[in-house]
Amino acid sequence: MPDRELNIALERESEIPLYRQLITQIRAQINGGDLPAGTRLPASRALATELGLSRISVVNAYNELRAAGYLSAHAGRGTFVARERDAPEARQQLPPAPATRQRASSIREMMRLARKKSLIDFSGGAPPSDFFPVRYLQDAINQVIERDGADALAYEAPEGYPPLRGAVRDYVRVIGINCRVEDVLITGGAQQAIDLVLQSLMRDGDTLLTADPTYLGIIDIAEARRVHIHGIPIDEDGIRIDALENAIDQLRPRLIYVMPSYQNPTGHLMPLHRRRQLVRLAARHRIPILEDEVYREFRYDGDELPPLKALDESGVVIHTNAFTKVLLPGIRIGYLVADGPYYQRLARVKQAADISTPGLNQRAIHLLLERGVLAKQLERNRLELRRRRVAALAAAQRYLPAGSQWKAPGGGLFLWVELPAVGPSAAETFIAAIARDVAFAIGALFYTGEGGRQAMRLNFGIHKPETIEEGFRRIGAVHAALVADYGDVQRRAVL
Amino acid sequence: MPDRELNIALERESEIPLYRQLITQIRAQINGGDLPAGTRLPASRALATELGLSRISVVNAYNELRAAGYLSAHAGRGTFVARERDAPEARQQLPPAPATRQRASSIREMMRLARKKSLIDFSGGAPPSDFFPVRYLQDAINQVIERDGADALAYEAPEGYPPLRGAVRDYVRVIGINCRVEDVLITGGAQQAIDLVLQSLMRDGDTLLTADPTYLGIIDIAEARRVHIHGIPIDEDGIRIDALENAIDQLRPRLIYVMPSYQNPTGHLMPLHRRRQLVRLAARHRIPILEDEVYREFRYDGDELPPLKALDESGVVIHTNAFTKVLLPGIRIGYLVADGPYYQRLARVKQAADISTPGLNQRAIHLLLERGVLAKQLERNRLELRRRRVAALAAAQRYLPAGSQWKAPGGGLFLWVELPAVGPSAAETFIAAIARDVAFAIGALFYTGEGGRQAMRLNFGIHKPETIEEGFRRIGAVHAALVADYGDVQRRAVL
Repeated sequence: MPDRELNIALERESEIPLYRQLITQIRAQINGGDLPAGTRLPASRALATELGLSRISVVNAYNELRAAGYLSAHAGRGTFVARERDAPEARQQLPPAPATRQRASSIREMMRLARKKSLIDFSGGAPPSDFFPVRYLQDAINQVIERDGADALAYEAPEGYPPLRGAVRDYVRVIGINCRVEDVLITGGAQQAIDLVLQSLMRDGDTLLTADPTYLGIIDIAEARRVHIHGIPIDEDGIRIDALENAIDQLRPRLIYVMPSYQNPTGHLMPLHRRRQLVRLAARHRIPILEDEVYREFRYDGDELPPLKALDESGVVIHTNAFTKVLLPGIRIGYLVADGPYYQRLARVKQAADISTPGLNQRAIHLLLERGVLAKQLERNRLELRRRRVAALAAAQRYLPAGSQWKAPGGGLFLWVELPAVGPSAAETFIAAIARDVAFAIGALFYTGEGGRQAMRLNFGIHKPETIEEGFRRIGAVHAALVADYGDVQRRAVL
Repeated sequence: MPDRELNIALERESEIPLYRQLITQIRAQINGGDLPAGTRLPASRALATELGLSRISVVNAYNELRAAGYLSAHAGRGTFVARERDAPEARQQLPPAPATRQRASSIREMMRLARKKSLIDFSGGAPPSDFFPVRYLQDAINQVIERDGADALAYEAPEGYPPLRGAVRDYVRVIGINCRVEDVLITGGAQQAIDLVLQSLMRDGDTLLTADPTYLGIIDIAEARRVHIHGIPIDEDGIRIDALENAIDQLRPRLIYVMPSYQNPTGHLMPLHRRRQLVRLAARHRIPILEDEVYREFRYDGDELPPLKALDESGVVIHTNAFTKVLLPGIRIGYLVADGPYYQRLARVKQAADISTPGLNQRAIHLLLERGVLAKQLERNRLELRRRRVAALAAAQRYLPAGSQWKAPGGGLFLWVELPAVGPSAAETFIAAIARDVAFAIGALFYTGEGGRQAMRLNFGIHKPETIEEGFRRIGAVHAALVADYGDVQRRAVL
């Protein structure tokens, strides 16, 4: 089918954002038959140039239209007007994609577009790369190869390199988890740990409960695994127990996923009494809890709290953590601690998933642990991150729009900000912010359903104080400009 | 419940193998009520010592009784007489385990027990560790860290390190696969690649077709993913097209998995005409084929054949290979080549599974490829493996039982041997062989259902010629001793 011409006429003086106008006009032309099914649309870059828009505006418009079923995209071939009955053959073989799929691909696209040097990027979830103990790791790898030779490069045992399992056992004992080496399973980061738990405990169509908002990765996993994910509202202590119990009664979930310490994205710390309530509730209903403690070690003030697994007397809690956040994300070493019946199944699924986690990486991390590099790292990281948090809170106070709300996080990497309820949404602000070389994560991405329209997540941990200040200043300026441009914001049709 | 005494009286002069007697007597005591539900059985090591048996005999007896539902095992707590209604709480939460689960855990147990220094072990699937380019890898890692610093240790792009994707594109083009960088997905070895394909294309309860016998890993994955696996008989050209077409009509499978080159376990090479038939059949029925070419580069004689993906005009073939067999298994780098609609879903599932494959490992492999280390390795490996194959064929001729059958493999690591139809099974021979410090893989493990009772897989690639000769000599002696011990083998009750 030959390409048709798109006829787009943007009103630059309008109160309606340009990319919204683009959506409306493309939709009208599809509905009106001017763009029949199968028509290829211009590449986002070409259309952006033609219309004098930023590329992200066009990408967002295409994404929304895809999510609404107007368009379909084929990697490398382009974006087309969707046709339901005439889908490519191979595609018909695939199980239908769940409604949330658009979310994950949008954020991926968004993050890809955001990769340019001049950008001050608060959107990522990674720890600051200037903290990575690069030389220590290099030394450790060399010593492992000298010491172990080819053994370091052969298949490792599926459950993990035994000395590393022992080191993890020792490590979690300090925080109150009394386990044996046989209860420790080494994984490819916490992400694989979470994925293995879902695969072990859940079937297609089962229900998973989590907080709302929650870690984006669990939303991705639930989608990939065809599992229903249901978000429970939070209060200032974390996931709400009353709402959770209702959901347990009504939805009969197979698993509860929580991040008790410095939750991603909100930075909340679940206090001890809520931790106890949560474990008791799960034990009473015999629903396993997966606790993800990857931010636990990023603690800036307050007492250290026991993980849920330390409060667990009935073996209902599965604990995961990783050396990705505190040491080296790209090395991809994490672990699970689980009791017997869960453990056996997890180990089987792990072996099926990838035989084993790379042995060289495991041995190098083990050496770093043994030498106390992790402990030293943590101390250094905490000091520096505490400084960055101070800078972020001061910059937020000074630059973020009046009426924005946030809570000083006691740990973790993130500041979670609610923009004023009346005014540009976080997504609108994001699109404008990219043009001014600053980015953050749009809050709505972290919700399992609706919500988070005005929220944004700012990773302050990855920037130096002066960069944080400049970045927050830009966000404030972008937001103010949006409010000024649009005139009477209350009258507008918003995203 | 206090431990009860087991009363076992073995008849050492009997024709019935000792571990079979053990099974029969334990089963009788459970059925007779002497061993009530919940009774803990002695640890396998203790019972073996008490009865003067090898530990593997006791483990095999326990495994069979577990498979038959008489016993249940709890990691670290021991083996118990099973009780259906009184299972541990947490266990009730788990989806029921499929019938094949016993297979995977038995082989794991078997392989674990087999790990002792004096053993001549032909059972593994790994390439010989004396081939690993340890120093080259060490140099490559150091240079990557010097060159890329912290970037090498940060999160890598989910689809893979872009230069490595480019190198894979170049690599597969040489064997006739015309693809783009965007069609290449880097994975944690071929095992993860296979697992991602199953997860992307199949739901719980869907059917997967494969050859019978087949790669043990796909049986593991199918079990972990709750997918039905159905084995199609093979002839000398590989998977039988007539039987495959029947199965497609009757079972409506979602995926076909094959290993066209030097199949694991049989070593068969699928000739060109069968490759074409297979691709045509799949295209006609629009069933995707996953081709696993991990042994492709271990070619000793004959022409190089195109992979299925090179014959694929309709985008129905997904191609996987890895650098694990030819270079470094423990580094865990593999890849998938797939067309657009499959690719998008695979990339999403990959990101959910573990965010990304470790970047340092990808970059090091990329450097090794760029420097031609892989090409040099292949040449060296082929020369040496060809020598080992000659040694294996000569030793088989000289030492294996008269009436055994095998075919000289044109490539790969394995010799697939059928023991005489009348006589000890491969499993019986295995148990006796362990005591004589030699091991092989029991053929029945590679079958999706029944079959392979007399078959064994011998990895000749991991041993030097003199060790191959000594190992085969021991197997021949063990088998001869079994035949002699048992007297009239045709009268026996066999495994």
